[in-house]
Amino acid sequence: MAYQSTAVTVREPLRLAVIGTGWIGAFHARTVAEHLNDAVLHAVADPAPGRAAALAAELGCPNFTEDIADVFADDRVDAVIIAAPSTVHASLIAQAAAAGKHIFCEKPTAHSLTELDASLEAVARAKVVLQVGFNRRFSKDFARAAQQISTGAIGTPQLMRSLTRDPQVSGGLPGAEKIRTHVIFTETLIHDFDTLNWLNPGAEVTEVHVMADALVAPEFRENGLLDTAVVTMRYSNGAIAVAEANFSASYGYDVRGEVFGSSGMVQAGHPAQLSTATFDAQGEHRPTERLNIELFADAYRDQLAVFARKVRGLRDGTPGADLAVPGGGDARAALAVALAALESVESGLPVRLDAATRLAVQA
Amino acid sequence: MAYQSTAVTVREPLRLAVIGTGWIGAFHARTVAEHLNDAVLHAVADPAPGRAAALAAELGCPNFTEDIADVFADDRVDAVIIAAPSTVHASLIAQAAAAGKHIFCEKPTAHSLTELDASLEAVARAKVVLQVGFNRRFSKDFARAAQQISTGAIGTPQLMRSLTRDPQVSGGLPGAEKIRTHVIFTETLIHDFDTLNWLNPGAEVTEVHVMADALVAPEFRENGLLDTAVVTMRYSNGAIAVAEANFSASYGYDVRGEVFGSSGMVQAGHPAQLSTATFDAQGEHRPTERLNIELFADAYRDQLAVFARKVRGLRDGTPGADLAVPGGGDARAALAVALAALESVESGLPVRLDAATRLAVQA
Amino acid sequence: MAYQSTAVTVREPLRLAVIGTGWIGAFHARTVAEHLNDAVLHAVADPAPGRAAALAAELGCPNFTEDIADVFADDRVDAVIIAAPSTVHASLIAQAAAAGKHIFCEKPTAHSLTELDASLEAVARAKVVLQVGFNRRFSKDFARAAQQISTGAIGTPQLMRSLTRDPQVSGGLPGAEKIRTHVIFTETLIHDFDTLNWLNPGAEVTEVHVMADALVAPEFRENGLLDTAVVTMRYSNGAIAVAEANFSASYGYDVRGEVFGSSGMVQAGHPAQLSTATFDAQGEHRPTERLNIELFADAYRDQLAVFARKVRGLRDGTPGADLAVPGGGDARAALAVALAALESVESGLPVRLDAATRLAVQA
Amino acid sequence: MAYQSTAVTVREPLRLAVIGTGWIGAFHARTVAEHLNDAVLHAVADPAPGRAAALAAELGCPNFTEDIADVFADDRVDAVIIAAPSTVHASLIAQAAAAGKHIFCEKPTAHSLTELDASLEAVARAKVVLQVGFNRRFSKDFARAAQQISTGAIGTPQLMRSLTRDPQVSGGLPGAEKIRTHVIFTETLIHDFDTLNWLNPGAEVTEVHVMADALVAPEFRENGLLDTAVVTMRYSNGAIAVAEANFSASYGYDVRGEVFGSSGMVQAGHPAQLSTATFDAQGEHRPTERLNIELFADAYRDQLAVFARKVRGLRDGTPGADLAVPGGGDARAALAVALAALESVESGLPVRLDAATRLAVQA
Repeated sequence: MAYQSTAVTVREPLRLAVIGTGWIGAFHARTVAEHLNDAVLHAVADPAPGRAAALAAELGCPNFTEDIADVFADDRVDAVIIAAPSTVHASLIAQAAAAGKHIFCEKPTAHSLTELDASLEAVARAKVVLQVGFNRRFSKDFARAAQQISTGAIGTPQLMRSLTRDPQVSGGLPGAEKIRTHVIFTETLIHDFDTLNWLNPGAEVTEVHVMADALVAPEFRENGLLDTAVVTMRYSNGAIAVAEANFSASYGYDVRGEVFGSSGMVQAGHPAQLSTATFDAQGEHRPTERLNIELFADAYRDQLAVFARKVRGLRDGTPGADLAVPGGGDARAALAVALAALESVESGLPVRLDAATRLAVQA
Repeated sequence: MAYQSTAVTVREPLRLAVIGTGWIGAFHARTVAEHLNDAVLHAVADPAPGRAAALAAELGCPNFTEDIADVFADDRVDAVIIAAPSTVHASLIAQAAAAGKHIFCEKPTAHSLTELDASLEAVARAKVVLQVGFNRRFSKDFARAAQQISTGAIGTPQLMRSLTRDPQVSGGLPGAEKIRTHVIFTETLIHDFDTLNWLNPGAEVTEVHVMADALVAPEFRENGLLDTAVVTMRYSNGAIAVAEANFSASYGYDVRGEVFGSSGMVQAGHPAQLSTATFDAQGEHRPTERLNIELFADAYRDQLAVFARKVRGLRDGTPGADLAVPGGGDARAALAVALAALESVESGLPVRLDAATRLAVQA
Repeated sequence: MAYQSTAVTVREPLRLAVIGTGWIGAFHARTVAEHLNDAVLHAVADPAPGRAAALAAELGCPNFTEDIADVFADDRVDAVIIAAPSTVHASLIAQAAAAGKHIFCEKPTAHSLTELDASLEAVARAKVVLQVGFNRRFSKDFARAAQQISTGAIGTPQLMRSLTRDPQVSGGLPGAEKIRTHVIFTETLIHDFDTLNWLNPGAEVTEVHVMADALVAPEFRENGLLDTAVVTMRYSNGAIAVAEANFSASYGYDVRGEVFGSSGMVQAGHPAQLSTATFDAQGEHRPTERLNIELFADAYRDQLAVFARKVRGLRDGTPGADLAVPGGGDARAALAVALAALESVESGLPVRLDAATRLAVQA
Repeated sequence: MAYQSTAVTVREPLRLAVIGTGWIGAFHARTVAEHLNDAVLHAVADPAPGRAAALAAELGCPNFTEDIADVFADDRVDAVIIAAPSTVHASLIAQAAAAGKHIFCEKPTAHSLTELDASLEAVARAKVVLQVGFNRRFSKDFARAAQQISTGAIGTPQLMRSLTRDPQVSGGLPGAEKIRTHVIFTETLIHDFDTLNWLNPGAEVTEVHVMADALVAPEFRENGLLDTAVVTMRYSNGAIAVAEANFSASYGYDVRGEVFGSSGMVQAGHPAQLSTATFDAQGEHRPTERLNIELFADAYRDQLAVFARKVRGLRDGTPGADLAVPGGGDARAALAVALAALESVESGLPVRLDAATRLAVQA
């Protein structure tokens, strides 16, 4: 007897293009190229001379360009992954939507609610998917916590906490002189704002207060650097939440959450991920994870896998079209908190959020 | 051969009197009677008819009275343990000092800095010991954290957290209608304020902001009840601290601390104290402690043992006279934060503390 | 500007064939089809009518056959994954080697040292890779432990432990009547034997003693069922090891290891993998993993990824040709212990292993 | 108003005498003197010249003697604590019982079943309490495990583990040349044998097998030293247990237990007792306990407190007379296993225990 052939329906692969080839763009491109089943890295685009070419060569990507418009004009592209500088995210979302491309966009999606709203309108008109890179929602630890909350295991949230501490590099904070004031809120804590919103379903932030400082690199305090911040938030259901960040954790990447409710508490995250412990004359020791892409390796991969599955579901009618993903509304809710936090830093006072407009108003 | 006698120098026992026989007074009296070596429960005093007599009978205490002045007039009394209502603590401290008695006083030692200062002056004049009931300092978990910080294991503190969640009783908050607004700050969080001060040695609180609410018993919000609070504090060395409290934890008594510094982090406390874990079809389970005197059983006992040892050291020249204990200055520092927190609740704004006077001034 | 093309060297994909389409064979086939980069599922083979066809259809595999010889005759096949019944493993290894195919074979590779030796000779002659499915070596938890041991963190091993507890199914042990006596040693504990050998590098087992019983399904004790076993092993460097197995853990899949040495201890594995904890009136709770492919999801995938990388390295000169993998010698060492264990069960006595021949001799 | 006197019924204190003033005898004497309420250290006895006198002086004990008979002849002595060399335990038990003294005896109570039986008969005739120093039963961690088992939380035990690792001293094993072969079984593992018996209520050991060696101090192997041992035990209910010991743990004192049953598992013990964790560039670190009297500080104290309470209950009719304590039957069951273990070491073979006589018989 010899081989028989399978009547395989060869499905067209999903063709993804990555826009922006910085650290996170290159990481996403590699994830698509090496870890996504049924999706291919079709093109990479970056206006910086030579960078897209280099990444394409490294990953075996067939197309590259320094003109992002090429991607939008390419009918073969099913979806784009936007990992450009955050200042152009909103504009790229709008262009991608206008071109009918599904969109995965890194956070933050915008730096003002006005520009964000414009881009979300474009998405709504085009009826494309917009998934935002709130990868923490794809962490198994956090997803389990969210599931516990949604099934009522802890009752109504009353006290919440979410923190992000970035790993220390070379004992300091390289590039501190270029970090603008808003970064800790719009780039870092925006993850925590989204996490808290997600873990308190149906509630909205109504008040924000911040204490922040440059403690890691105090020599750049005068430049406006903030590298340490505690944001206190009041929610419409009464819950009081604390989001906390620091740019320089000696022991590695530290992301944790805690929700205390009327009938229980749930915690997620721990700097030591392995179950391995070593004991010696100095006591018990566990290794801690160094990088966000170590701590959240699965989450980074899974958010793109879900995106691809959802887009394919919409294109081919395969399962997945209805998968829930963090979208434009979530991006808006988190950005509103980040902007209010920035305002609180400037005034030194609490800031109230108007539930209707979600615009910050001085308390 | 027959017995030989030891040339034992029989030391006079330390004679302690307990003032106030409510829940915590009775608990301290029992600790003295049953767990302190070389100290005896000499007298109990309480103006409430019959209560001192009942406790004396129960514990085999030889003397009781309804007139607290009797205790101060009794030359045999070496030291008093004040566990009366906190409104009379400062007055009792001053009277005890005037009578030359060493003093252990439950927290809070006063409700205003003015009355506290008056009592501390009396203590200073009389040169007696004043130890404040900040029992958390005697928890092995927290003491280890303090030791790690003092030896530089985590560098300079940048982010701090201390929380107290009281155990839920009968699924609600009995007596909620009688709990006044300040209680969560002056009775509960004052432990956390002291803990944070202790874990950030040499630094002073310069700014306080509060978000608080009645979430456990919202029907008493109009009465001024606060049962949930988040207090954010800025320290003179830049550290930003969060103190958090809630009056109704379903899973028992929860006290934890965390200090993140320039070169590390230390954590203390966990609701599950035993190492015992049970695994079944629902997963892994650990029992949690229900009561503060369970979670801190050793700390409650050890704080009195240290007090007795210190007093004896002063009286008899035995070792212990120099033992460090939380004293009047610590009580004042914690009270200043509690009062600022109360002021912040009333104004809804951050409150600055003047380092010189330690009085709160509106931000 | 328009797209530019990358000068991509299209590498021939690695073509893998899976032999055997039972539970684990289907699982491996799916891993190749969905999770391996640069490798394709080229063919599936199973003599059972219709099974290979069904799996090929499900996974989009282009070729299937009911005649395993087809796979060996197919020049396009780079390597085979053997997941047939273990009774034919050794024969298939020899055939695959004779055909020049690289080999990944599930454990156990054989049921006698004689047939294993014959197959290993074929492998040696053909100079193909033989990787054995000891997936525990690819678990990050265990790999960290092995790394700690190899760097000397715990000194010389003195006491060791490795355990496997399979998850309970429907509260019982389905198919118990068909489970033969040797299965707990050759199919289950063989993982633990290999783990212990791996964690005690350079040492050999010299003595084996077993206590075993049918405790989960005692009604099949008369059939020879063993569902619970404790195997004690002495190593040539003096270390004493315990391997323990049970077929019915109510709380899920439980695999753990512990090595105690002259200057420390290392532990790996825990039934609860997530950091998520829920606290309620009953205490603290953590979810446990149910299935081996949950607990070791990464390890199952990574062992095949490493195999593919190694085979590609040998074929194409890409990095990876020198990757260390568990091979024929490891399979032999573990099988020798399993056979000695079976002998100990039959005699009720300890069994010595002759270091030279690695054949068991009655103590 | 002035003091009133309490009508206190002054109870006669319980008068305890400690026999043997070595390390553990002195420790028990101190516990009585400093930590037991309502009991006094009335006398200490030790034939070694000067030792009883020195301890009496240190602890303020009124009587001391070098003639142990003095203690038995003293009518004021309610109970004795036997901490002499274990070779004379059985004889002292019999003498104490004959004198009508209640008895707390350190383990092991004897070195042969014959001498133990004789002493137990004396105890039975005199109707005095005999409590054996199996302090692990008074550890909260282990007591919680026992309670979980007795309430059926894990079903019927199938696999059990108990281990004792003594802390390393000066990186070696001081006095190794004097340690006789049986010590690891009769002095150390006897705790584990009792723990396993206690955690498997109603079942009896029917078979014992040992692998043991001198791995810490191999230079004394020829002297008969055993410093490392693994004892496998089969119980009458089918459970298979492993007891494991080593004399030199670099990370401190390590005592743990695990019981796996038909519907769950329970674990007790962990080398790191505090909840305090420190994180730095090397990972997460927890301090481990160094000494048995650190790890089991509460258990050492509580076993004597329970003994005193029970004896007082019998003497004065106060509550406590019925308190369950480990007694002669428990000592006998553990000793039978220890002796069988020693026999297994000598023969290299498994040893069966006859349930009726509890004497070991060669398998």
